[in-house]
Amino acid sequence: MPFTATVLTMFPEAFPGPLGVSLIGTAWREKGLWELQTLDIRAFSEDKRGFLDDTPAGGGPGQVLKADVVARALDSLEGPPRPLLYMSARGRPLTQARVKEWAKADGIVVLCGRFEGVDQRVLDARGFEEISVGNAVLAGGEAAAMVAIEACVRLVPGVLGAAESLSSESFEDGLLEHPQYTRPRTFEGHDIPEVLLSGDHKKIAQWREAQREETTRERRPDLWAAHLAKTAAEPGSAKSKAKGAKARGE
Amino acid sequence: MPFTATVLTMFPEAFPGPLGVSLIGTAWREKGLWELQTLDIRAFSEDKRGFLDDTPAGGGPGQVLKADVVARALDSLEGPPRPLLYMSARGRPLTQARVKEWAKADGIVVLCGRFEGVDQRVLDARGFEEISVGNAVLAGGEAAAMVAIEACVRLVPGVLGAAESLSSESFEDGLLEHPQYTRPRTFEGHDIPEVLLSGDHKKIAQWREAQREETTRERRPDLWAAHLAKTAAEPGSAKSKAKGAKARGE
Repeated sequence: MPFTATVLTMFPEAFPGPLGVSLIGTAWREKGLWELQTLDIRAFSEDKRGFLDDTPAGGGPGQVLKADVVARALDSLEGPPRPLLYMSARGRPLTQARVKEWAKADGIVVLCGRFEGVDQRVLDARGFEEISVGNAVLAGGEAAAMVAIEACVRLVPGVLGAAESLSSESFEDGLLEHPQYTRPRTFEGHDIPEVLLSGDHKKIAQWREAQREETTRERRPDLWAAHLAKTAAEPGSAKSKAKGAKARGE
Repeated sequence: MPFTATVLTMFPEAFPGPLGVSLIGTAWREKGLWELQTLDIRAFSEDKRGFLDDTPAGGGPGQVLKADVVARALDSLEGPPRPLLYMSARGRPLTQARVKEWAKADGIVVLCGRFEGVDQRVLDARGFEEISVGNAVLAGGEAAAMVAIEACVRLVPGVLGAAESLSSESFEDGLLEHPQYTRPRTFEGHDIPEVLLSGDHKKIAQWREAQREETTRERRPDLWAAHLAKTAAEPGSAKSKAKGAKARGE
């Protein structure tokens, strides 16, 4: 079986969306390099009226997706165990490190919430990992699930052709990517930065590295702090070398 | 004109996906409370062969979306100016605070990248805000655009019915939401926490607040640090009151 992403959702018609286009879509539909399955949670109600949700214990607005409905949907899945994700504003942020782990598995199972959330007991009992994308509240987990699935699937061997690169990417080493420029040389009065046209590969690499550092410091103080801590801890790093030199009075 | 989300993409067929379902889909298709437009970037190439991209200035793998193509697509839009978003791993993280601002505008224009990125000059010259969702690399910006649009549209007046609540949500006050539970009382041997069945509203509120704090501290040290800083700075807050009491020797 190829890498299989199974989505538990009340809205299977929301899929495939972006998962059906471009190289990722071709890899699924034509090459069979990965598989997308949607499972309609609505089919797993045992309530006569087909209810999936009930009022929150302890009061409060909205409705909560019932534990037994999710459990039955999950138990209907066949094949080897896979990481279970629940897309939720309460979750830990999606990271490239987790994505890489998931991409090595037989696939992932992604639960999309609606209403006020899912009964916490089924999340805890079955070991769902709660994952958020961005610090914003969504109406449901479907768009977030597409983000997580796309991030995984593009790492499945063969999915991205030589046309796209997996090396030197944002988050790979804790820094954001450098800006990109292409022809024409002048666009609406703005030139491509001189150094990029110099042909001096060393200078270009230095300029790009400086841009990566500056952008990360400016836009992602969280990543920048982590990067500094990591750089300082590495014995062979430029920063610790500089520190060593300073200590030696050089 | 209602709130209008215009998406600049090479893959209009990826839409509407999750934006077409549930209350958000009904609000668009049936109630006309918001509008979704997709604009195919491919139509704006002036190259005979229809090329949209070119090699990165300074070298490196992949291709870069050309500035003039994006500029022409943008210039074809009519109506009042709207915030311009570019979904990118290089961006600042999506936040509920920005979402609230965008939701008050006439709409948003969202550019979806592909390849190695977009020529930085058009992003700078036109004032695109670069936004990321999650610390992971995607194949394109479409899924991320859906996340941003969904987050905005659900705040447009009338889109969410009384069925869903906008109050007391994750990120509204810097803390994650508390866990939720619903019937049955026992699920696979796990009971709903006793306090939620007590009927004591004050105790329930305290328990939920404690859960919010614990979850935020555990899963989002970044939000927790910001929350502590904010709480300490507020003169009327419990923490600064406690501090004041301590200082007064109470």
